[in-house]
Amino acid sequence: MAQVHARQLLGAYALFKDFEPAVLDALLQLSRVVRASAGDILFREGAPASSYLLVMQGKVEILRFGANGDEKIFGLLGEGQVAADAAMFMPHGRYPMTARAQGSAQVCLLGRQQLHECCRRYPDLALRLLAQLSQRVYQRVNEVDWVISSSAAQRLAVYMLNLAGPVGREINMPVNQRQLAARLGMRPETLNRLFSKWQEDGWISGRQRDWTLLDAEALQQVAGDSRRLF
Amino acid sequence: MAQVHARQLLGAYALFKDFEPAVLDALLQLSRVVRASAGDILFREGAPASSYLLVMQGKVEILRFGANGDEKIFGLLGEGQVAADAAMFMPHGRYPMTARAQGSAQVCLLGRQQLHECCRRYPDLALRLLAQLSQRVYQRVNEVDWVISSSAAQRLAVYMLNLAGPVGREINMPVNQRQLAARLGMRPETLNRLFSKWQEDGWISGRQRDWTLLDAEALQQVAGDSRRLF
Repeated sequence: MAQVHARQLLGAYALFKDFEPAVLDALLQLSRVVRASAGDILFREGAPASSYLLVMQGKVEILRFGANGDEKIFGLLGEGQVAADAAMFMPHGRYPMTARAQGSAQVCLLGRQQLHECCRRYPDLALRLLAQLSQRVYQRVNEVDWVISSSAAQRLAVYMLNLAGPVGREINMPVNQRQLAARLGMRPETLNRLFSKWQEDGWISGRQRDWTLLDAEALQQVAGDSRRLF
Repeated sequence: MAQVHARQLLGAYALFKDFEPAVLDALLQLSRVVRASAGDILFREGAPASSYLLVMQGKVEILRFGANGDEKIFGLLGEGQVAADAAMFMPHGRYPMTARAQGSAQVCLLGRQQLHECCRRYPDLALRLLAQLSQRVYQRVNEVDWVISSSAAQRLAVYMLNLAGPVGREINMPVNQRQLAARLGMRPETLNRLFSKWQEDGWISGRQRDWTLLDAEALQQVAGDSRRLF
């Protein structure tokens, strides 16, 4: 039953969509479905990367621990999303980050070897993976470029606008303020100061993780010309 | 003659090493050798990415222009190095950066279509490319992580130590100070202040692009525990 669900989700994931059923069969060979409780570690940074992960239910956080023990949350994955697929090809053969269940969750662990084998047998899959990885290289290069040339206020404005989407006003942040400050490369006090200032100016209102954008245009002004054309 | 040289260099590049001669033949089909003078643009950010580039002679800078017209230099490639291979797979089909000859140079332009075709015919090539791209994703993720959590002094110390290598003392920087400040995400005044301070402290001596590390251990201390274990 769980395997059927895993197969449906995997077949709906952009990378594996519209392939013949044999490809999904091969990918799912020796896979296993695992239940996790809040806080369970699904894989750990530095451990041998033998399988990648499909979220079947619940949420999975992707994170690293800083030298001072602080958590840095890099992503939050929901149902049907995949983690550590790139790690299956990294020459060092280790997980570059830690995956942890946010609440209770169900995931499917899929084998590295099966993925490699499918890339050999189905060149279209290899080419799709190349497209996906090159796109990620591109996004990361842009991120480095942007982080280096932006101010703390710009990074926070872009982060809030991205969360809100094109028409949204209500924002629920997936991380707490301490984690947000770490993620955006600013001190927690700087983040606090920006929130206070923007509330005084009537641009935003809210607290902790829940915010409303009252003046998205003002935030756009702060964000500036930071979006790339392609 | 030039084509023979291109073939030798391509066959020595890690990605294409030890493949049967037919693979190199296929990759080099319809390739062309181009001579460039200092400052010539070899490809431009945003233009359709139809070919990747092998440096045969001279140096090629990889850069972007900032919104204010400032140049940001991302890399400097020498003989036998390849640029824009990842761009051949990016879904947007455009060059993510600009390539410019630093002095007089000779390059070989190789076709996107031939590379795709070889990935289909030789799965080992596709898997090597996947390894290379996933490694780059990993490096870029680490770079974002590091840039966000480091100080200006840490970034400069790591940059100088990396240039010097394990036993080196003499450094020749591939970029000028304005470009270096942009690359390391600090204001030119901050860079100046760090150079002055470290000279006063007797850690480094030099000017402009030429520096000597007098006390690499002190710089290691500043750099801190910034290197990852794998």
